[in-house]
Amino acid sequence: MQKLEEFIAANRSAFEQDLCDLLRIPSISTDRQYRGEVRKAAEWVADQFRSLDLETEIIETIGQPLVYAETPPVTGKPIALVYGHYDVQPPDPLDEWVSPPFEPTERNGNIYARGATDDKGQMLTHVKSVQSWIQSLGKLPIQVKFLIEGEEEVGSEGLYDYLESAAAVKKLNCDIVVISDTSQFARGRPAITYGLKGIAYFELLLTGPKQDLHSGVFGGAITNPANTLCKMLASLIDEKGRVQIPGFYDDVVPLSDRERAQFSDLPFSERSFMEQVGVDGVTGEAGYSTLERRWARPTFDINGMTSGYQGEGAKTVLPARASAKFSFRLVPKQDPTKVAEALREKLNELCPPGIVVELQEMHHAPGLVIPLDSPYMDAAARAIEKGFGHSPVFIREGGSIPIVNTFADKLHVDTLLLGWGLDDDNTHSPNEKFSLADYHRGIKASARLWQELSRIEPSA
Amino acid sequence: MQKLEEFIAANRSAFEQDLCDLLRIPSISTDRQYRGEVRKAAEWVADQFRSLDLETEIIETIGQPLVYAETPPVTGKPIALVYGHYDVQPPDPLDEWVSPPFEPTERNGNIYARGATDDKGQMLTHVKSVQSWIQSLGKLPIQVKFLIEGEEEVGSEGLYDYLESAAAVKKLNCDIVVISDTSQFARGRPAITYGLKGIAYFELLLTGPKQDLHSGVFGGAITNPANTLCKMLASLIDEKGRVQIPGFYDDVVPLSDRERAQFSDLPFSERSFMEQVGVDGVTGEAGYSTLERRWARPTFDINGMTSGYQGEGAKTVLPARASAKFSFRLVPKQDPTKVAEALREKLNELCPPGIVVELQEMHHAPGLVIPLDSPYMDAAARAIEKGFGHSPVFIREGGSIPIVNTFADKLHVDTLLLGWGLDDDNTHSPNEKFSLADYHRGIKASARLWQELSRIEPSA
Repeated sequence: MQKLEEFIAANRSAFEQDLCDLLRIPSISTDRQYRGEVRKAAEWVADQFRSLDLETEIIETIGQPLVYAETPPVTGKPIALVYGHYDVQPPDPLDEWVSPPFEPTERNGNIYARGATDDKGQMLTHVKSVQSWIQSLGKLPIQVKFLIEGEEEVGSEGLYDYLESAAAVKKLNCDIVVISDTSQFARGRPAITYGLKGIAYFELLLTGPKQDLHSGVFGGAITNPANTLCKMLASLIDEKGRVQIPGFYDDVVPLSDRERAQFSDLPFSERSFMEQVGVDGVTGEAGYSTLERRWARPTFDINGMTSGYQGEGAKTVLPARASAKFSFRLVPKQDPTKVAEALREKLNELCPPGIVVELQEMHHAPGLVIPLDSPYMDAAARAIEKGFGHSPVFIREGGSIPIVNTFADKLHVDTLLLGWGLDDDNTHSPNEKFSLADYHRGIKASARLWQELSRIEPSA
Repeated sequence: MQKLEEFIAANRSAFEQDLCDLLRIPSISTDRQYRGEVRKAAEWVADQFRSLDLETEIIETIGQPLVYAETPPVTGKPIALVYGHYDVQPPDPLDEWVSPPFEPTERNGNIYARGATDDKGQMLTHVKSVQSWIQSLGKLPIQVKFLIEGEEEVGSEGLYDYLESAAAVKKLNCDIVVISDTSQFARGRPAITYGLKGIAYFELLLTGPKQDLHSGVFGGAITNPANTLCKMLASLIDEKGRVQIPGFYDDVVPLSDRERAQFSDLPFSERSFMEQVGVDGVTGEAGYSTLERRWARPTFDINGMTSGYQGEGAKTVLPARASAKFSFRLVPKQDPTKVAEALREKLNELCPPGIVVELQEMHHAPGLVIPLDSPYMDAAARAIEKGFGHSPVFIREGGSIPIVNTFADKLHVDTLLLGWGLDDDNTHSPNEKFSLADYHRGIKASARLWQELSRIEPSA
């Protein structure tokens, strides 16, 4: 192991250069005009594997390409499948970035760029740990497979379609999935995430008159789509922060007393949370702490809204259309399809005369909880302790990683969610960053993980 | 009068060319980058007067320039002041225009361009009628003054400031104001508008976290500005379409039985109104007909709204900010300042922890009603009958012409609102148009108006 550790230590600078190379590619999957850049990022990742002489394949899908690679099989040892993504969120609002989003820049020990933490930097720790094993010790103690996709930020359509095939299920056969696309609990408190929220994301378009009208001449006489949008969205959540869709809470698993106690034992400061976010108060579902709301209660958030005149000054217009993007974060057992159906029915009921309502389901996934008592969880905890110098805490997350559900369904395996990021990494926001120290600790923890996993006897 | 009529008939084509010349200038007052074009429109209007040897002046203001001109005084006769504006609304959404907004195009007897009816075309009828008198008969039977401004669409700040000076009040001394910036009741039913709504226009900005955040990681834990905006705006109007600001209806003058009867006698078809607008139903304040709501009841309309991600696809962002432009249309006796104060108080009360609320008052004006029983009203009715071949109907309007209030306050005169436009002229909307037949009828009616007004003995 000393040789491995020395290799990792000696290659810090090269590993950072590689990260910057990948971060320079604006692989924005939600925007069609970046299609070429998304492909470029896929090729870059594939080249990493090819340079290690791994079996490497670019798998074409109905969406963005998948990058697949595998190290040689090791008989009698578990197989780990590393999943990650090389696509990123759009960088806007651009004018809030201190340095350009696709010119990775180091400041205060962090690398700043879109995708630094989500997920290029975190994903790359596993590539670099495999590289380190191969280039220092010649081979790995278990077989590691990689599946790196390019449309995680827009619903992974290509990946899901691919996973429908029997060939895919055979190729991806494994004992455990490893994903680093989550956060530490706090700086120096690495975390294993055992619970994820689901999501149901929608776009609602309300159409009123056939074109924008003079608000003096027509105001009060016809139904205003923007007024209606506010009414409709406001009615989806009550004064206590409870979602007002029939049946929404029916399947919600209540927080256990043990979990509530465990959450409240964590060193969470509401004051520093508010400072981090930049607000002087918080609100949410009544009767639950901030951590409980973030991790284990379903939520409703508007993600974007647009209607009428948005330029400088005043325009007395009655807008023809109003639209919003919004999403529900779901907890385990809530069914996104049931939520979508009940929502559609409710919106249709709320729709007043003179308005046409169109509801588009963008993407959805159920939430899930991963069992804590397994040898894989123990192996991961030991690897993290060696990589970070601290034992991990076990937490839940407000975010969604829908693919974890799919791996459970299709491959019948659990997933280890090993978070190297930090809560203030500005994921999906301007000035996204990743700590270089955490990047290197992540590489070390990942390298140790392959060793720890090799001690487990895989089930048949 | 025959010479005058012949001149008007002989110059149809030249008058249309002049209209097109003015419509080609994109004098968009709300957008700073069009400042030069606004100035160009002012010069164009001034050149019209200069070419008739009128006393002409471009009056600089703290805002856009005013164009002033006057014909020679006529002793013992009333003085008429024509007010109009050479600025226009922005043309967006651009892709809904059949022909470009600043390339005037004739189709089906209409001229299509931004400003065609509001107010370049209507304003120009009075310039052309004065030109016709001068060039056919040598002089006018009364003194006509012109005051044409360049920021009507954004609140007329420069004009209001100018009207504060004693010199302005002296220069603009007159017996009656004439404005054509309203509509006929229907095609071939010219109208004199005797009631106008007031307006109170606001921009509301809600700020939450210091930047956009991941809606999974932070959703439900902090207050979402977009959710809050919907809640706040939705709470400003109830299920019956009643504005929910304390004291809002206190000063509203109820519709008289006579007015309600008169409105319901007008040949208004709700079905064709809905067809014109392109909706299959209408809503509004309960207990009032569509015409009553449009003309004589206060309203609340959102004019624009913006927040978070508005691009293609889905972005799971919790927006840092949400904002809306909205306006109340007010009826006579409602005080916009009182409305603004009560609104500000209400919004501050509604503001939840974690949100900073900023309310900007954009512009406001009270509503008003002009007395029907005056010799000026009678003169206008006769002139319209001669110009259009039909006696006018007397109507009210949902739009605001705040300057009418100011003329009453500062110059102590009433205003004749002579509408040559049509309800389907797409004012403030794509494909704004003005009927060329109405343009020429408006010129004839205006030419007759100077004659009819000359029969009135002005009060001392």
